[in-house]
Amino acid sequence: MAQERPAEALEPEVVQRLLLSCLEARNTAYCPYSHFRVGAALLTRNGRIFLGCNIENACYPLGICAERTAIHKAVSEGYKDFRAIAVATDVKDDFTSPCGACRQVMREFGTDWAVYMTKPDGTYLLKTLKELLPASFGPEDLQKIK
Amino acid sequence: MAQERPAEALEPEVVQRLLLSCLEARNTAYCPYSHFRVGAALLTRNGRIFLGCNIENACYPLGICAERTAIHKAVSEGYKDFRAIAVATDVKDDFTSPCGACRQVMREFGTDWAVYMTKPDGTYLLKTLKELLPASFGPEDLQKIK
Amino acid sequence: MAQERPAEALEPEVVQRLLLSCLEARNTAYCPYSHFRVGAALLTRNGRIFLGCNIENACYPLGICAERTAIHKAVSEGYKDFRAIAVATDVKDDFTSPCGACRQVMREFGTDWAVYMTKPDGTYLLKTLKELLPASFGPEDLQKIK
Amino acid sequence: MAQERPAEALEPEVVQRLLLSCLEARNTAYCPYSHFRVGAALLTRNGRIFLGCNIENACYPLGICAERTAIHKAVSEGYKDFRAIAVATDVKDDFTSPCGACRQVMREFGTDWAVYMTKPDGTYLLKTLKELLPASFGPEDLQKIK
Ligand SMILES: [Zn+2]
Ligand SMILES: [Zn+2]
Ligand SMILES: [Zn+2]
Ligand SMILES: [Zn+2]
Repeated sequence: MAQERPAEALEPEVVQRLLLSCLEARNTAYCPYSHFRVGAALLTRNGRIFLGCNIENACYPLGICAERTAIHKAVSEGYKDFRAIAVATDVKDDFTSPCGACRQVMREFGTDWAVYMTKPDGTYLLKTLKELLPASFGPEDLQKIK
Repeated sequence: MAQERPAEALEPEVVQRLLLSCLEARNTAYCPYSHFRVGAALLTRNGRIFLGCNIENACYPLGICAERTAIHKAVSEGYKDFRAIAVATDVKDDFTSPCGACRQVMREFGTDWAVYMTKPDGTYLLKTLKELLPASFGPEDLQKIK
Repeated sequence: MAQERPAEALEPEVVQRLLLSCLEARNTAYCPYSHFRVGAALLTRNGRIFLGCNIENACYPLGICAERTAIHKAVSEGYKDFRAIAVATDVKDDFTSPCGACRQVMREFGTDWAVYMTKPDGTYLLKTLKELLPASFGPEDLQKIK
Repeated sequence: MAQERPAEALEPEVVQRLLLSCLEARNTAYCPYSHFRVGAALLTRNGRIFLGCNIENACYPLGICAERTAIHKAVSEGYKDFRAIAVATDVKDDFTSPCGACRQVMREFGTDWAVYMTKPDGTYLLKTLKELLPASFGPEDLQKIK
């Protein structure tokens, strides 16, 4: 059902652009500690694409993931409605999956959008955020105490 | 199958102890900003229970969740094998669900353990971590680049 | 000495542009939980300015500060050499100071740059990062173990 | 003045115990990614010592520092008044300094306590938190907007 899987409604050329974008986004990764480059490409409702990369820190917990970099960029430019995000690393034999923290940050802006977990060869695994973060905690829950 | 759902093998009195513990853990919550108390109780393989609460910060991103507090305590005491974690808030009409960041920290120590999402009345929803963080990124993935 | 306080070398009109930019950056703040808007403006060595705002999350620890948003944006666009950052909130009677986490993320990219802590009226307090994070831990320290 | 540097009032044998404790705390460090062990020992107003270690994650930003582990443990046990914290790594030729994020978490619980930055040989550099995080943002600042 389109309502539940809006990702399926993405035009093939948009998907293609998103897939190429997340591969490209790896190029600015700052990862001197893990040497593990990650790139993300975020598609807004109105068709803009924001690129993000992982940015590490000598104090590891202060680093940030590619997905969150892309989301923060978009929000700071005034965009908060998202259709899809695609993620890429240099790992050849497995689809790249967003960490739980990134799933939670995505979830702040809705549960009904698409996550493309890719391989460098352009193949991907597609899930909705709802599938990747089931039974999630979100903005509504915080209100329930009041 | 017991191997896949080890949680099911938990003795009823242990479950009961875990449920009471996470309610109790809320009492030390330091949450002057959200006023949203959270408690967690973590059960190790060898039967110890560690309590955790949320601890906030004037700079919100520097706070920590109850689940992670409990896990960090256990690890810092030398425990890294876990069977289950239970989480509680003061929200009466919904089961308390761990955030994505906490799911990821749990996942560092295995995917095959039980998460009790509770209500203050002691009822709960039970899921394995694998169910709560499907298609997860973990320690093995980081090696794949090498 | 210019080498130690490069901030002092900033041209007045650049400072002015930076101060106006951090005020403007507050407009995209996503802060439904704290209602505390923060804006940051980051000046690169080659004169570009990146804007950042705070972006909160229902799970408070997953939020991000304005300063880090600005830095992550710049790095993800290929910029890693910075001259100055300016920070603003809506607090009228005190200069806005970056949190420790942001100071550490700034420090990853050098200790010798300028931090303008401002008030909404455009007045400011100027410190170098070295002054704001003395005796800091940084990239070099991580190598010392090897 | 004792009020400004309460650390100076610490009895020598307490300091000694704190220094030994932070070295010991390194033993439970979970750092498969950095191989950089850190230990912390936190002294409460009423003389209890809490140990903390760094706990890393395959997703680096989800790790936690030793200092914060110690503080979170103490708070979750009901302790919020601190006199001093000592930090140790395996780095032989330099004093171990807390990261900015840890300084900010310390600051939530006061500015007037002592930070012992140590070497494995037991020598140390002593600073107050106020010295390590000057012009800090804290709980009071968040109220100023209201
Ligand atoms: Zn992530
Ligand atoms: Zn959490
Ligand atoms: Zn900050
Ligand atoms: Zn730290």
